[in-house]
Amino acid sequence: MRIGFIGLGNMGLAMAGNLVRADHALTVYNRTPGRAAGLPAPGARVADTPRDLAADAEVIVTMLADDEALMATMYGIDGALAALRPGAIHLSMSTVSPGLAERLAAEHETRGATYVAAPVFGRPDAAQAAKLWIVAAGPAAAIERCIPVLDVLGQGTIVVGTSPAQANVVKVAGNFILASAIVSMGEAFALVRKYGIEPGRFLEIINEKVVRSPVYQNYGSLIATEHFEPAGFKLRHGLKDLRLALQAGDEAAVPLPLASLLHDQFVSAMARGWADIDWSGVARVSAVDAGLEVGDRARA
Amino acid sequence: MRIGFIGLGNMGLAMAGNLVRADHALTVYNRTPGRAAGLPAPGARVADTPRDLAADAEVIVTMLADDEALMATMYGIDGALAALRPGAIHLSMSTVSPGLAERLAAEHETRGATYVAAPVFGRPDAAQAAKLWIVAAGPAAAIERCIPVLDVLGQGTIVVGTSPAQANVVKVAGNFILASAIVSMGEAFALVRKYGIEPGRFLEIINEKVVRSPVYQNYGSLIATEHFEPAGFKLRHGLKDLRLALQAGDEAAVPLPLASLLHDQFVSAMARGWADIDWSGVARVSAVDAGLEVGDRARA
Amino acid sequence: MRIGFIGLGNMGLAMAGNLVRADHALTVYNRTPGRAAGLPAPGARVADTPRDLAADAEVIVTMLADDEALMATMYGIDGALAALRPGAIHLSMSTVSPGLAERLAAEHETRGATYVAAPVFGRPDAAQAAKLWIVAAGPAAAIERCIPVLDVLGQGTIVVGTSPAQANVVKVAGNFILASAIVSMGEAFALVRKYGIEPGRFLEIINEKVVRSPVYQNYGSLIATEHFEPAGFKLRHGLKDLRLALQAGDEAAVPLPLASLLHDQFVSAMARGWADIDWSGVARVSAVDAGLEVGDRARA
Amino acid sequence: MRIGFIGLGNMGLAMAGNLVRADHALTVYNRTPGRAAGLPAPGARVADTPRDLAADAEVIVTMLADDEALMATMYGIDGALAALRPGAIHLSMSTVSPGLAERLAAEHETRGATYVAAPVFGRPDAAQAAKLWIVAAGPAAAIERCIPVLDVLGQGTIVVGTSPAQANVVKVAGNFILASAIVSMGEAFALVRKYGIEPGRFLEIINEKVVRSPVYQNYGSLIATEHFEPAGFKLRHGLKDLRLALQAGDEAAVPLPLASLLHDQFVSAMARGWADIDWSGVARVSAVDAGLEVGDRARA
Repeated sequence: MRIGFIGLGNMGLAMAGNLVRADHALTVYNRTPGRAAGLPAPGARVADTPRDLAADAEVIVTMLADDEALMATMYGIDGALAALRPGAIHLSMSTVSPGLAERLAAEHETRGATYVAAPVFGRPDAAQAAKLWIVAAGPAAAIERCIPVLDVLGQGTIVVGTSPAQANVVKVAGNFILASAIVSMGEAFALVRKYGIEPGRFLEIINEKVVRSPVYQNYGSLIATEHFEPAGFKLRHGLKDLRLALQAGDEAAVPLPLASLLHDQFVSAMARGWADIDWSGVARVSAVDAGLEVGDRARA
Repeated sequence: MRIGFIGLGNMGLAMAGNLVRADHALTVYNRTPGRAAGLPAPGARVADTPRDLAADAEVIVTMLADDEALMATMYGIDGALAALRPGAIHLSMSTVSPGLAERLAAEHETRGATYVAAPVFGRPDAAQAAKLWIVAAGPAAAIERCIPVLDVLGQGTIVVGTSPAQANVVKVAGNFILASAIVSMGEAFALVRKYGIEPGRFLEIINEKVVRSPVYQNYGSLIATEHFEPAGFKLRHGLKDLRLALQAGDEAAVPLPLASLLHDQFVSAMARGWADIDWSGVARVSAVDAGLEVGDRARA
Repeated sequence: MRIGFIGLGNMGLAMAGNLVRADHALTVYNRTPGRAAGLPAPGARVADTPRDLAADAEVIVTMLADDEALMATMYGIDGALAALRPGAIHLSMSTVSPGLAERLAAEHETRGATYVAAPVFGRPDAAQAAKLWIVAAGPAAAIERCIPVLDVLGQGTIVVGTSPAQANVVKVAGNFILASAIVSMGEAFALVRKYGIEPGRFLEIINEKVVRSPVYQNYGSLIATEHFEPAGFKLRHGLKDLRLALQAGDEAAVPLPLASLLHDQFVSAMARGWADIDWSGVARVSAVDAGLEVGDRARA
Repeated sequence: MRIGFIGLGNMGLAMAGNLVRADHALTVYNRTPGRAAGLPAPGARVADTPRDLAADAEVIVTMLADDEALMATMYGIDGALAALRPGAIHLSMSTVSPGLAERLAAEHETRGATYVAAPVFGRPDAAQAAKLWIVAAGPAAAIERCIPVLDVLGQGTIVVGTSPAQANVVKVAGNFILASAIVSMGEAFALVRKYGIEPGRFLEIINEKVVRSPVYQNYGSLIATEHFEPAGFKLRHGLKDLRLALQAGDEAAVPLPLASLLHDQFVSAMARGWADIDWSGVARVSAVDAGLEVGDRARA
């Protein structure tokens, strides 16, 4: 299968590397050139434009930062849509808005091609180890054809529906649940700290004895020790995903007061200059708002 | 050790039963008489009043519904405080307010007795199986003396400080984290349902692949299948604990916007007549507010 | 009519002074002695205790800080309840909780006396000028008998029901509306400031052209110029009234998400050490959370 | 001055009518044809497309529903941008996003034309009576040239800056303040109703005695009497403006928790099918969430 891969950021480079290792013939494109040098041997052909890449690809994988980056890649004179082959499948693995997924699905259909949404859960280390969890939605036959590719990239693919937007909704709803866990710990830690209880001690009780989740353990430890750099997942990207959740809610008339609250905490973190720390650092907003001191790295 | 046990509700009866089985000589008191009949042989002496019970006890265990019930038991002409023996220890295992804990600690000290706060995590089945997790705070020597009792009741005791209020803060902060998880699932489920995705399917992805917590599994399943009766922990009691968290935050100048939001969702559930369903049923508020149908048992 | 007046704070002293000027025979009590010296000639008899004051009074007016102060005055060995005369009327003009109003109403009835709630809208200058607006609730005949007293204190009395708690609910709901106006301006000002628009200019547009309210003009100007000291109404007292509103909502199963949000903003202001600035200073929380600089007097 | 007027909805038709009456030579365009018949004699020339209209106009006034409608009018083969004359001024009077204002300002500058934002406060009756308040921002010379037009349309124009987005921020911040007033009344009314107090009576107290604003009087009466149809300003449009406020906040890193809360109440109203009732009808959400009955016209 001739695969085109667009987007060689931390996630994309790890994923494309796995495809190279699995002996897939890969053409790659990245807005900033030179990133393909990071691929394992034998490497990949580098396309000059998304259009150039699309001209030849049976499957196009995109792994980009946001809606804007995906649109920039697809539309315009050098965009992939301009050269999309009939029968091609676009495997869109970034976390983008359900609205854009719907729009692109229609654009592809017009051209005899198929848009499949397949966002992932997992960070760069999971991408590297091919341990991503992939949530897919789109026409069943097209997903079926992509399974060999998806199997190289993750440890499992869960199909949630035939409309691509559904996979994106699952992804943003999932990230919303993680953000809720983070902010609830931030608020609880601020409370216990003011009563003289060490957050790490509290986390030990609530997670080891009750919640028992690696997610709580991981983020809870980061918050308790105020280790927010380097970021595993940047706060600004967490905010982006909350915006997508709110937008999805707005479009489907679902009030999301908890997501709104998280959004405002993230915006407040942005206003304090914390855009690039780990998203668990949003917990600092709760601490600062309670009049607590935050660590050296923080600007309050 | 001569133990007095006050409060034979679902939790208290199970706990007192374990003490009887462990051959502790028990005197019990319950506001509504007759509950002691549910104890295993050889049963326990039944006191007429908390005062009567206190006259003889080295350790008094209380397991009551709320601040009001605890105050009714301690104060007044027939209250336990009136007959408290010097050197006695009051092991207060209910979830009460940090403020009341502080006040009672002072009352006990005046009388040469000691107040130890030891609220628990776990439902009646965990109480029955002696699998509770106990969070204790108070003078170290007093907690030490209670360990034989606590070991009969739970699978472990974590000491969080020397001031009783600290254990209560840990407990209410812990329940706040659980309530956050519940409400975040409720909101996420409402969102995915409006996009045609089955909540159980979504839970499978987000919990089995990402969060991996038995708490999410348990409550998530209840919400996905709308099984809120019989209640494992009543919604009205969840609301009570959120009130205690907010009160603790207010007293220590900790803004708790997330706890406030949960509180309002619970109040809205109360207004809809759902006081006695399981507290995970608060998720229905998110569903109803999104215009979704809720199951037969619900009054919207 | 023999009037007893309890509570000579800024409000109470001004009100008691008006009664003296209107030739009412006044007995006064204040926890901190010496305040009666501030009354106009011929002044008033000073009682040693609330009980002493009550022994002789046909109408007892109370104007105290909060529930606790009112309870301290009414209950106990020296409390007014102990000496209440049959037929006496307690005109309770402080902003207290609906719950306490109900409880005291019952206590008075037991003693053949009557409790009338009559909280006021207006600050000390309005009290001085007898320009208060009084909201009354209680048995109609008792209110009727108090009209001569109320007419001396305010520019009008509006009766809202026969249950005293109703007047308190109106008062706290009213203060909630004012707090909403304040916080909405704080948030809007933070937004326009970040777009380079001067808050005073924005206020000019939105109030002079649209809202046209002296309340918005007054508080909006204070916020725009950051003049929060001296306080007309202290932030800590604004918080107290929001707590009362939330408590009233909780008891009647009315979710109040907006009041909760205001409450958390006020708590955040408390955590920043702003308890004694004017309650309009809560707007600073919005500014700080948006990363804006606040004036010299502020501790961020 | 040759004026082109795009958008003959309720607001636009009234405004264009005033320009006709003031003897301005008008060319008009409306997506749905036939609306120009509603103009007073001698009427206006009707253009086939925005482009046709722009070819000849010195000033183009747009009064459209939202960002999408404005973009549809400006961009594309038949869009106004395609025929914009150098030196022309686009007087954009709709409430659109600050972001679109910035983008269009740049597009106009490229073509030697000028974009002036001039959103208005006022409903169709105020438009009819030329009693609008106009908030303008853009290059000073361009605004100056438009004053004769603006004077025909409103009772005053307030200039808030030289960057068009500033006028839009003022407008959406202003509507946010109005929405806050509405929702605070909705919540307060739900509270007092549960205590047996008639909302109209409460409004009488809080507005006539304290707030004294025609806005509170108007919306408060609508809420108290549940008269939400016909809509003066539709709930869906109120929601649109809250979205714009949140978007403006997000872009400038201003957390807007109160605006978020209002947004969620409006979304909940949408989910209940209330998109086309008056925006003051959002108060019904507070009533329903408190378990209160709402009037016949409401679908709960």
